[in-house]
Amino acid sequence: MAGEDTHYQDLERSNGLHDSTFSNGHAHSPVAVNGEDTPFVHKVGIPPRTTILRGFEDTLKETFFPDDSLRQLKNEPRRLKLLLALKYIFPIFEWGSKYKLKTFQGDLVSGLTIASLCIPQDIAYAELANLPPVYGLYCSFVPPLVYSFLGSSRDIAIGPVAVVSILLGTLLRNEVDPKEDAELYLKLAITSTFFTGVFQAGLGLLRLGFIIDFLSHAAIVGFMAGAAVTIGLQQLKGFFGITNFTTKTDFISVMRSVWRNTDQWNWHTIVIGLFFLSYLLIAKYISKKKPRLFLVAATAPLISVMLATAFVKVTRADKHGVQVVKSIHKGINPSSVNLFLFSGPYAAKAVEIGLVTALVALTEAIAIGRTFAALKDYHLDGNKELIALGIMNIAGSCSSCFVSTGSFSRSAVNFAAGCNTAVSNIVMSTAVMVTLLALTPLFYYTPDCILSVIIISAVINLVDLRAAHLIWKIDKGDFLACLGAFLGVFFVSVEIGLLIAVSISVAKILLHITRPHTAILGKIPGTNVYRNLQQYPDAATIPGIIIIRIDAAIYFSNSNYIRDRILRWVDDEEEKIVASKGVPLRYTILEMSPVMSIDTTGIHALEDLQNALTKKNLQLALANPNGGVIEKLERAKFIEIIGEEWFFLTVGEAVQVCSRLDRTNC
Amino acid sequence: MAGEDTHYQDLERSNGLHDSTFSNGHAHSPVAVNGEDTPFVHKVGIPPRTTILRGFEDTLKETFFPDDSLRQLKNEPRRLKLLLALKYIFPIFEWGSKYKLKTFQGDLVSGLTIASLCIPQDIAYAELANLPPVYGLYCSFVPPLVYSFLGSSRDIAIGPVAVVSILLGTLLRNEVDPKEDAELYLKLAITSTFFTGVFQAGLGLLRLGFIIDFLSHAAIVGFMAGAAVTIGLQQLKGFFGITNFTTKTDFISVMRSVWRNTDQWNWHTIVIGLFFLSYLLIAKYISKKKPRLFLVAATAPLISVMLATAFVKVTRADKHGVQVVKSIHKGINPSSVNLFLFSGPYAAKAVEIGLVTALVALTEAIAIGRTFAALKDYHLDGNKELIALGIMNIAGSCSSCFVSTGSFSRSAVNFAAGCNTAVSNIVMSTAVMVTLLALTPLFYYTPDCILSVIIISAVINLVDLRAAHLIWKIDKGDFLACLGAFLGVFFVSVEIGLLIAVSISVAKILLHITRPHTAILGKIPGTNVYRNLQQYPDAATIPGIIIIRIDAAIYFSNSNYIRDRILRWVDDEEEKIVASKGVPLRYTILEMSPVMSIDTTGIHALEDLQNALTKKNLQLALANPNGGVIEKLERAKFIEIIGEEWFFLTVGEAVQVCSRLDRTNC
Repeated sequence: MAGEDTHYQDLERSNGLHDSTFSNGHAHSPVAVNGEDTPFVHKVGIPPRTTILRGFEDTLKETFFPDDSLRQLKNEPRRLKLLLALKYIFPIFEWGSKYKLKTFQGDLVSGLTIASLCIPQDIAYAELANLPPVYGLYCSFVPPLVYSFLGSSRDIAIGPVAVVSILLGTLLRNEVDPKEDAELYLKLAITSTFFTGVFQAGLGLLRLGFIIDFLSHAAIVGFMAGAAVTIGLQQLKGFFGITNFTTKTDFISVMRSVWRNTDQWNWHTIVIGLFFLSYLLIAKYISKKKPRLFLVAATAPLISVMLATAFVKVTRADKHGVQVVKSIHKGINPSSVNLFLFSGPYAAKAVEIGLVTALVALTEAIAIGRTFAALKDYHLDGNKELIALGIMNIAGSCSSCFVSTGSFSRSAVNFAAGCNTAVSNIVMSTAVMVTLLALTPLFYYTPDCILSVIIISAVINLVDLRAAHLIWKIDKGDFLACLGAFLGVFFVSVEIGLLIAVSISVAKILLHITRPHTAILGKIPGTNVYRNLQQYPDAATIPGIIIIRIDAAIYFSNSNYIRDRILRWVDDEEEKIVASKGVPLRYTILEMSPVMSIDTTGIHALEDLQNALTKKNLQLALANPNGGVIEKLERAKFIEIIGEEWFFLTVGEAVQVCSRLDRTNC
Repeated sequence: MAGEDTHYQDLERSNGLHDSTFSNGHAHSPVAVNGEDTPFVHKVGIPPRTTILRGFEDTLKETFFPDDSLRQLKNEPRRLKLLLALKYIFPIFEWGSKYKLKTFQGDLVSGLTIASLCIPQDIAYAELANLPPVYGLYCSFVPPLVYSFLGSSRDIAIGPVAVVSILLGTLLRNEVDPKEDAELYLKLAITSTFFTGVFQAGLGLLRLGFIIDFLSHAAIVGFMAGAAVTIGLQQLKGFFGITNFTTKTDFISVMRSVWRNTDQWNWHTIVIGLFFLSYLLIAKYISKKKPRLFLVAATAPLISVMLATAFVKVTRADKHGVQVVKSIHKGINPSSVNLFLFSGPYAAKAVEIGLVTALVALTEAIAIGRTFAALKDYHLDGNKELIALGIMNIAGSCSSCFVSTGSFSRSAVNFAAGCNTAVSNIVMSTAVMVTLLALTPLFYYTPDCILSVIIISAVINLVDLRAAHLIWKIDKGDFLACLGAFLGVFFVSVEIGLLIAVSISVAKILLHITRPHTAILGKIPGTNVYRNLQQYPDAATIPGIIIIRIDAAIYFSNSNYIRDRILRWVDDEEEKIVASKGVPLRYTILEMSPVMSIDTTGIHALEDLQNALTKKNLQLALANPNGGVIEKLERAKFIEIIGEEWFFLTVGEAVQVCSRLDRTNC
């Protein structure tokens, strides 16, 4: 702020009477503030008036079309517009037209890789949602196909993901016990998935995608870590082969049911588990060290499933209490439209659950989309993505799928495996289809513990300690949100953690607005620039003048505080001056640059301030009020109240005028 | 913003190589940014590190003790401290010590005046709370006494007020029907009053007074108007003498029960009502025109009560269906401690009701206090006031009073009548005491319609059309909140109106933060100052450089938008340049002055932005990042990422360096 221009010679030249200084204003300026022609005092401009409608229109546009997503359509011939619109709605036509064999190679490899990764994960994640294994596979067949036609991300890998699955699982279990009434549970799951899709598509259509921005980075880091740990803990069931395990997800209950059921621990299971867990972790480690060996980690899950299955089949370890998957229903997704619960007590619940899962699923998908789009430098229209994901889940809910979204781990592998387009998703879903049609019997002897260790090794990456540490270093408030989210998930439940995270984040903003920062400015030696004394210790104050910067928009929530704070600055300053027998204060200059807007309550506060200062006979001057603010001050007649000659373009000019006045007054 | 300093001669002098320009930094600067000794490029300072604890402490202080209320106590001897503390807790000792007979005269007159005004109002307002008339009088006896010892406002007149009474009335009636179970209703009312007091005192003790700031001026205007109209409508019952009237408060139901019960209209009542209503309004009008005749309006209610009562007693109009007050219980406030409902289903309800009424009552009281404190130029400690009001209501709830607070109308009269201290409240409550002890029988024949017209004439002022119009002129968003509050109260109910008002206000802030303003800056001719092109149409852009100002703190809720918006500005600019075959863009300068803070999500957005710009090979430069921001950017290593030589004190300097580089590159 404090934009200044020191034409000292001018200062000397026009070092005359004050009144003569503020004479005629320039014609082109709506209100001629300090309108004099000596170049060193400039007018505060008022932006051209816009009609209410126009202003309203702009606000709408900025709010709902911030990315100006249809810009490509403007100034194009009508027929081309149609084609472009079609391509806009179905991106597959966009890249499909220029699709080459070369591109397909990459997609084939990556598609098969993520297929090998997703099949075991799917079976395992279905477990997290308290559904039979086959439903996981269903989710990797229909949704990816639908997305590949509508979605604009080229690298995202669609399917069920751990966090969303467990979130859905907990929320559903709060309503229906999957063991007691499996059918009702399934119905509720399908219906919730439907509403998830509806909410996602709805948010996209209404251009409300920005809602997910209210989940801050910090909150997500904390939530993900918490979810990962919770999921990991859940796996102790399969890992120890415990049969009757708690249905709660919080740390305490899980630990209790692990230690209370030591009698159920099955050593065969534990040994198998430990062996393959170490294999998976080592594979992960290798790929991390040597990224081109990504296949080592990517294929590890499938390999361990095959080995473990073979091992159990041969040794019949299942006879020794090693629990196995048993038969997985054969055949592709059956229709589930007859399962929807659109009436009755559970419909409302389904809507609630749908909303929560929709938001969490979105944050994950959008985050992935943005990350890889940035890496490959292509643009993603957030709201369009929402629609794609929404339709995908609606289609899914009609074909026996639960909520699917973009998976961090598989998308990363997809990217590493050199995918080029959404075709990799098509390849993957084809592979899954084949599995569903022919290969499910092979999983009969797959031990549950393998699925557990696969989940464990998959979710480990979600605990991002480095990010958490960085957050701690940068912003303690954010860290609080992060920690709150983590502890909430860890000790209570997934949805509570989420709630805590969001509330802390929003509370932080509101508090920040309610108690904005203010600073005393001083002159930086050798210049005419005025800056915060704390930031620039060698800046010097001007005798008889106090310069205060307000670092926030002045809203009803902070206007009283700001008024009182400014008066306190003035009081403190006057005390100091009395103590040091310095020059008494004559002017209070408010640096308004950071005040990007003001509301009616704020203007009232300014009026109060002006009165209070006049009582102390201090002159108030405003430096560089910005467009929106000066406009409102004018409408509120505040400019007339303090006199337009007390509005300045820069603090520097305000100071020059004030000190010049003092001199003339002496 | 855009602080600049044009030493062109310096520019010429050091117009050498770039590398030589950014050499040694100054010792006293934590990080030496563009650390060269030529005076025209200055370093961006980083404020001295503070410990976490210290920063935390400061935040707490600013949040909870913004008015630094105990400053008077610092550097005083210990014994004096105690005395000052005592005076701080009981302001009466403060002014009591220097209380003179002269001061008493003013207090006596004003005290008697507000007494004459409050007695009829009390009886009427008790009706609004669905309680027997005498409870209104109780509220003007104990609470004012308590307040006069604890409160620091000298002009506020304590007692029951229309808006709070009707709010309490509606909330209570939602739970218990006063006709069916009068005793339970009374118990609930007393208990709610108790919790109102507890919440008020609690907020004060916890220094959370700022919560009431979340009721914006606009919201209050709308709410008050709505409440006034609602109250006025309620009076149609007494005005027309209708016996069975709706218990709802919304416009539709009230109007319906007025027109459906025309058979119950009583012409005697209506005539008396019309006569005295015109008298009251004329009296009001006179006092408004000639403020020194305030007594005309102030005494009008009591006079009309006396006349009407006499008239009814003589003509026995009550025999002709004119409803009268009938006997009012004699004697001062009985104890009500045995009425508290601290257990059972209604306790929780009482807490809820207490919270809502507490906030509304506070807003009114604090608003009054601040207004008159400003007029007489003395300071009010908001949180201390809360405690005073809270204790007052707790005491009230123990002595059969319902919620009391400061009354706009009576405080104004009190001020006009020349009150000097809270003694006027003592005088008033003494007068009320006398009334309770001896004069209640006189009100036997007082017709209800008089009370109705007194209320009508009292609440009329709460409809502040001028304020509403001003709000419309200044800020359409605020007007929306105002209108929402009004319509909510008018068509639904008092509490819904309140809810709407608060939500709109907060939503407005959040939206504002989610979609902050950004602007393109240009050079103001003849200076080196850079300002918004829309605000200063004659400002000129610099070829090859785009200067963007971000008008908000960068938070998780807006960081994605800001990043995309900036990139959009750049794209638009490049399109223009291509069209006009101008100098291609080389530099993007971000004016950071208004960015008063940034969080981790925001920093990530800046990193994304930096990557995106590098891809377009544009150099990013930051001008005048403020203390908190630069600190976080440093911790996040962002300074290293874009290179510290790209941080500038002012846009002007940034532009000079960039254009100089271009020249050297050519």
